[in-house]
Amino acid sequence: VKFAPLPPGFRFRNGSALVGGQVAYESWGSLAADRRNAILLFTGLSPSAHAASSADDPAEGWWEAFIGPGRALDTNRWFVLCVNSLGSCFGSSGPASIDPETGQAWRLRFPDLTVEDIAAGGKACLEHLGVTSLHGVVGASLGGMSAMAFVAQFPGTARRLGTLSASDAASPVAIALRSVQREAILSDPDWQGGQYAPERPPVRGLRIARKLGTTTYRGANEWDARFGRQRVPNPTPGAPFGEPEFEVERYLEAQAQRFATRFDANCYLYLSRAMDRFQLADHAADGRLASVFASVGLEKALVIGVETDVLFPIGEQARIAAALTEAQVSATFVRLNSPQGHDAFLVDVAGFDPPLRALLS
Amino acid sequence: VKFAPLPPGFRFRNGSALVGGQVAYESWGSLAADRRNAILLFTGLSPSAHAASSADDPAEGWWEAFIGPGRALDTNRWFVLCVNSLGSCFGSSGPASIDPETGQAWRLRFPDLTVEDIAAGGKACLEHLGVTSLHGVVGASLGGMSAMAFVAQFPGTARRLGTLSASDAASPVAIALRSVQREAILSDPDWQGGQYAPERPPVRGLRIARKLGTTTYRGANEWDARFGRQRVPNPTPGAPFGEPEFEVERYLEAQAQRFATRFDANCYLYLSRAMDRFQLADHAADGRLASVFASVGLEKALVIGVETDVLFPIGEQARIAAALTEAQVSATFVRLNSPQGHDAFLVDVAGFDPPLRALLS
Repeated sequence: VKFAPLPPGFRFRNGSALVGGQVAYESWGSLAADRRNAILLFTGLSPSAHAASSADDPAEGWWEAFIGPGRALDTNRWFVLCVNSLGSCFGSSGPASIDPETGQAWRLRFPDLTVEDIAAGGKACLEHLGVTSLHGVVGASLGGMSAMAFVAQFPGTARRLGTLSASDAASPVAIALRSVQREAILSDPDWQGGQYAPERPPVRGLRIARKLGTTTYRGANEWDARFGRQRVPNPTPGAPFGEPEFEVERYLEAQAQRFATRFDANCYLYLSRAMDRFQLADHAADGRLASVFASVGLEKALVIGVETDVLFPIGEQARIAAALTEAQVSATFVRLNSPQGHDAFLVDVAGFDPPLRALLS
Repeated sequence: VKFAPLPPGFRFRNGSALVGGQVAYESWGSLAADRRNAILLFTGLSPSAHAASSADDPAEGWWEAFIGPGRALDTNRWFVLCVNSLGSCFGSSGPASIDPETGQAWRLRFPDLTVEDIAAGGKACLEHLGVTSLHGVVGASLGGMSAMAFVAQFPGTARRLGTLSASDAASPVAIALRSVQREAILSDPDWQGGQYAPERPPVRGLRIARKLGTTTYRGANEWDARFGRQRVPNPTPGAPFGEPEFEVERYLEAQAQRFATRFDANCYLYLSRAMDRFQLADHAADGRLASVFASVGLEKALVIGVETDVLFPIGEQARIAAALTEAQVSATFVRLNSPQGHDAFLVDVAGFDPPLRALLS
């Protein structure tokens, strides 16, 4: 992982500056001499910039199947760059990183965060690398929101846009679910109004938030096939409440334990609320989504949605695609029937790979 | 509200007896001289036996539109009886009621609860009233599960069955969601391992459980139309996390406050886990659902499902209806397109009323 400093004049959308701010990134492939072959990749809520393995870090990345020589994000041709979202906790500045003036974590003194700020963090990274023109900007989930916020804020920078399982503005159900997740963290006494010590984080709240997230990230039919009503072998007779009885509960438990020990609670709150507030149409004077895309200079766009996604329902991707088309951007809308719901972009390589290749090649 | 004692020989499915056990009930209409005109109504997870207003209690009931003279549950013809589920906290014995031997609430010493026990609680109430034959047994959600458990356990008692937005066996998604709700209660330090004082219940956990419940009880399209992305007027600038910004969050807040002050946390845990474990096919030696219905003596059945229900998805009602038909019960399956999701049975009177009338008349 490498780091790009936020440029001296960097301001959050709410006007705040950030002393010593930085964005963590990783890259694959080589930047061409004209510096015009870069693809900028934004992430979902929880991943780091480690989207794929590399000589520096051979661990498997979160989008390994899509990045590499001959893959959809073809590193023989493109310089692929993934940034850890501003506000996250994997190297980019966020509530868990240290305020150099106090030597303490920013915690809730970190500036109010928007998806636009995450996009601007990506732009700061490009400036650091001397990249002023992108072959494309791509992202899924929050990453797709960030990619659209990037295009809206920095018109003419990216030639192609790929927005996967994303939304221009979240639905009330998605807001409600995230609100419950945040309340689980806020209700954990260990949250301490955000002032928890790093060694005593609000694990109970994070566990609940992650279990609910996991449940809404996947498709019902996939879980019917994968877990059904299968029971945990040899459950304790008269086991207390909270002990998993069904395999699906054991799966949630494993997900929660992994997450609660590696993700920072305040970062989660900031990123979660930013997703609720994001409303891409705010970037047009007339408040129309098509107007946002009218002057962004895109030559091509891809919008993918998944029929089984309950968190970012397919009507939202249809709305984005219609607005792009109305704005005379050459846009392809792909509806996938992946059973995996919102998380399909991580696992349904057969569904996501061909349209991504078509967008970028 | 009136009370029926559990008969002396009453045993829970796990073999436990319950000293001083009782079931709370309300009734509307008159029991005929032959005592054969009763309809037994079971409730969902959270309501009391107060399904409709009466001279004794003029407050509006939770199924007011369906019960009364000339209504679907026509009190000019039928003696309608609604029981508070065994294990609940509105008069029936449950974890919050007092163990007469200790003078303390049973709490987690209350016997392990199943949907079959709730059904047996209804049967105890019938015995108390001298009713041995029912015109029908009806219920929605957990109430529909209880109605089916009643039919399976007491064959020949009910002539007609109405099971609405119910399941013969919950899906892994429903189990996961309930598991998260239970964890929210268990994680609340005020839960105290179940030993909380009545005046200091685990309100934070109950709030989260109810907010998540409310979110999964309703349909996405209904909320799009009802709340959209409407913001709370005059939010506090720089409001802390946890303060509602969107109208949907304010709605959840109102639901949570009402629920957390009136429902007992241990009762919630017992009822929630009973729903996960329920598996109607266990009542057949060959484990087939149709076999359960083969010898229950039903003359007619109605199964209603709602396309937008994410908690009790319509495939489950289709499965029940198919099993009834295979068992040669004259069964009607009604698919409703109500936008209100799982809660439609409370509000979509136009959709639920005609088939219920047809079942019972």
